[in-house]
Formats: sequence, C-alpha cells, structure tokens
Amino acid sequence: MNKQELIEQIREKQSFLCVGLDTDLKKVPQHLLAEEDPIFAFNKAIIDATAPYCVSYKPNLAFYEAFGVKGLMAFEKTIKYLKTNYPHHFIIADAKRGDIGNTSAMYARTFFEEYDVDSLTVAPYMGEDSVTPFLGYEGKWVILLALTSNKGSQDFQLTPLHTPLAGRWGPGVFEGERLFEKVLKTSQQWGTDENMMYVVGATQGKMFKDIRDIVPNHFLLVPGVGAQGGSLAEVCKYGMTKDCGLLVNSSRGIIYASQGEDFAKVAAEKARELQQEMAAELEKVGLC
Amino acid sequence: MNKQELIEQIREKQSFLCVGLDTDLKKVPQHLLAEEDPIFAFNKAIIDATAPYCVSYKPNLAFYEAFGVKGLMAFEKTIKYLKTNYPHHFIIADAKRGDIGNTSAMYARTFFEEYDVDSLTVAPYMGEDSVTPFLGYEGKWVILLALTSNKGSQDFQLTPLHTPLAGRWGPGVFEGERLFEKVLKTSQQWGTDENMMYVVGATQGKMFKDIRDIVPNHFLLVPGVGAQGGSLAEVCKYGMTKDCGLLVNSSRGIIYASQGEDFAKVAAEKARELQQEMAAELEKVGLC
Repeated sequence: MNKQELIEQIREKQSFLCVGLDTDLKKVPQHLLAEEDPIFAFNKAIIDATAPYCVSYKPNLAFYEAFGVKGLMAFEKTIKYLKTNYPHHFIIADAKRGDIGNTSAMYARTFFEEYDVDSLTVAPYMGEDSVTPFLGYEGKWVILLALTSNKGSQDFQLTPLHTPLAGRWGPGVFEGERLFEKVLKTSQQWGTDENMMYVVGATQGKMFKDIRDIVPNHFLLVPGVGAQGGSLAEVCKYGMTKDCGLLVNSSRGIIYASQGEDFAKVAAEKARELQQEMAAELEKVGLC
Repeated sequence: MNKQELIEQIREKQSFLCVGLDTDLKKVPQHLLAEEDPIFAFNKAIIDATAPYCVSYKPNLAFYEAFGVKGLMAFEKTIKYLKTNYPHHFIIADAKRGDIGNTSAMYARTFFEEYDVDSLTVAPYMGEDSVTPFLGYEGKWVILLALTSNKGSQDFQLTPLHTPLAGRWGPGVFEGERLFEKVLKTSQQWGTDENMMYVVGATQGKMFKDIRDIVPNHFLLVPGVGAQGGSLAEVCKYGMTKDCGLLVNSSRGIIYASQGEDFAKVAAEKARELQQEMAAELEKVGLC
C-alpha cells in the first residue's frame, strides 16, 4: 500500500487506528480454547468486529513465535484472512528485526515476499546496511524504531550526543542532538516518506514536536495509548500533519477489553470510541 | 550451561569456535534437496562433522523463518538433535530480539523454555526493560549487541556521546565515550558476566582493547572471521582473557566451504583448521 492509498483510507474511515493483535492464549476467552486454532479464531473475531473502525492491524510476532509451529500457522492464516477479506487495511508485522545485510535481506524476503505484509518494524542499532535491504520493495515500508514507549527508551535513545557543529560548548550548556534524533536524521538518507515510517511512543508527549521538526512528513506509528498510559490528544496536538501522519496503535485496551464471550463486541465498542476521538482530531486539521 | 562449564568445554576441545548454522536452501548441496527435510539434513551432517572442533552452534533465525512453518520445524529439530546428541555444546539462537517488557518476556519464554537454547542475541536500543526479561533464567544468557561486524556499526554504535564528567571540553578536543561503550557500561547494571555476553565483530580489530577496559571478564561472541574479513589473531591479541572469554563464530566459511557431496567433510576440515589456530592462541594464555 502506498502513502496516498493509506491517507485515503484514513479519510474514508475517519480513523487512524491500528489494532495490535498481541494474541495470547492465556488471555483469550476460555470458550475459544476448544477451537482447532484458537489464536486464529480469536483474531478473526476481533478483525471482523473492529475492521470498520481501524485502518491497520499489527500482529506482534513474539506472541505467535511463543506457540512455535502452531503460532506461526496462526500468524500466516491471519495475514491471509486480512489480505483476502480486508485488502485495504495496512498490515504491520511487528517483529523489530535488523541484522547484517545478508540476514536482513532474508527477513525482507520472508515478510515482504512470503507473507506479503505492508510493513515491518526494524531496529536501527546496526545501521544502514541492516535497514536498506527492506527498502527495495514497491509499496512496502520499514517502520524504524526511533523513540519507543517504554521506560528503557531513556537508557540510550534519549542520550545526548557529541555534535560539535550543532551544539554550544561548555559543561552544562551543551545542546546537542539526542540519539533518536540522529536515527531520524541519518535514516532519511536511506529512505523517504514513501517507504519509511518511525515508531514513536505515545508516552513521549511533547517530544512529538521535536520529532516533527526533523520528519515533518513521515508517518509515525504510535504505540502506548491505553495500557501504557499515552494520551491521544497530546499525540495529535504535537504529532499530526496535514495528511494525518499518524497510525495510533492500541492492543490490550481493545482486544482484551472483555475476556468473556462478548469479547468481540466489546472490542468493537472500544475501537469505535477511539475512532470517534480520532474523527474529532481529523476534523481539526480539515481531514474530514 | 554456566560459565565454568563453558570454560571447561573450551579447555577440553582446545577450541572456542562457534559454527553458524545460516542454512540457506539456495546454497546447500543439490543432492540434499531430495531429502524430506533438507535444512535439517544439512544441519545434521554439518553438526556431526564439526562437533569435535567447536564448542558452540549458532542457528540464525532469519534463515529458518524464511521457510515459514517448514523452516521453524527444521530449527526445532536442529535444537533437539543438538540437545540429545551434543548436550555440552552451547546453543546460541541468533535472533536479535528486543521489545517492550511484556513482549520480551514472551520471547524469553519461547527461546529459554520452549526451545531451551542456552542463549539469545538481543538488541539494546530499547533499553533496560527490553533486556531484563531474558535475565531471570538459571544457566541462560543474553548476548547483547555492542559493536557489530558490519559497515553500519559506524552509523550509531560508534557515535561519540555528550559525557560531561568523563570528557574534556572544547571543539575538537572532546574525548567522550561512544554509544557502544555506554551500552557496555549501562548493561552491567542489569546482568553479570555469568548471564550476559556481548557481540563484538571480528572486523573491529583494536577496539577489542577499549572493550576489555570496560568488560574485562565477560565472554564476547565474535562474528565476522572469514567471509566478513576479521582476523582471528587480532581478536585474540586484544580480546582474549585468562578464561579465554571469546566465542568466535564462522558461518559461511565453514558450512559452504564446499557445495558438493563432500560438503560435510570439507566443513570439518575448515573447522579443524580454525580449531588448530585457536589451540595455539589458548596455549599462549596457558589454557591447554
């Protein structure tokens, strides 16, 4: 899916919601465990219920790998189900891959040729040749980790760098860029806003302003609304562009809102609530 | 496997070789493609041929994921084969995982409980809570990316940081630490040399000296000898400790040394050549 198609979907559905399919057999409703493939049965019900309110789905590979071969089969079935029944939803494989060139090329073939998802999350630590193998696919996207939603984002991502040209000098007055800013700047030499997005956690609040100074036009994938405590209003205030430029993810807050037999219905309600808030935000920038 | 057991294996085999099982169906000998599970057939032959000369095996998950469910089954069979037949070889799942806490916990269960491998490579970008879920398993190891073997290691890992207390000030004379050094220092608050190793590429030469200043006792997993151009002699000169402290990996240089029917025999010869060089290095530090 290209950028224009994604923007059209956002306009049409009045939503920039991504539903995270972090499907955990310990949390799915009991009655589904009798199904032949309970992970897929859960995903199918969630997808059918929430599709009108979202533009994207994001299965997190960790949850599928945890169930070995069966988990991987459920992942494959979920992707096929989406592509057959909801071909206009943007599919994100949340796998946070990244390795030396020849290995990243293997991952790229797996996710973009075999599974044929629209995008893959990628970790930047290993630099250019770990990311570029994912960029050669028409209509496919790298979603590079920039500033994540977790507490550990402070350990390295927010570290100030030694930037002699950009900063001022002297103890206490140095104002250099931080690692996540270097990731944003450097990676713009590798791809464009047509094949690269960035992960920025909803918990980062006003940092969205600093990020928009560097990447004014890129889409951002924003996890951390809901269970992790991020604010949708704040994300939109500082992060939204004239084309929206946001995909805001909610996983646990939607898919486990009820663990009873009404789980899909309640998931739809939660997704619809977020969609309504999003529609109001889109109206503010004239995207309605 | 704990640290003492690993050191004993190195003494006994006079080797610190890790054989990388980057098994690619496009590169395995033609005659194996007729087998029911050619990936496993290749691995089994390589393992049986090279086991006397190495202390560790490192399957790279990218190569197994590329073949979907079949690839994952071959990975599982390979791990089971190793654990049954070569229980004293240290198994590294090279997967470079790392995600927010609850997701890393899923990966930890998968690799340490389901597959029961000894160790997993982990990317540090997301910080403490992305790494610590892997550290609570007795006898299991995190192998954290520090300074990798690829060209892209220059993009972020070697970036100098703003470190007011450690450095001197003024344009051009600042001597601060680099990102990989911060990763080494910070992560020592999370784990010890009994449950954490670091990836340092063989192509990094004299940098091993800087690394040993920070982590004098940790084991280092060293890829990049062979196809990527790293020098074993240089790695040992600057990186070896009194306990060896090194696991040096070779993948393509061993497993694809011949693509004919003699592939296993030639792989054994290549592994033996490296083992002989390693024995000479171990002798220098009295580990023989």
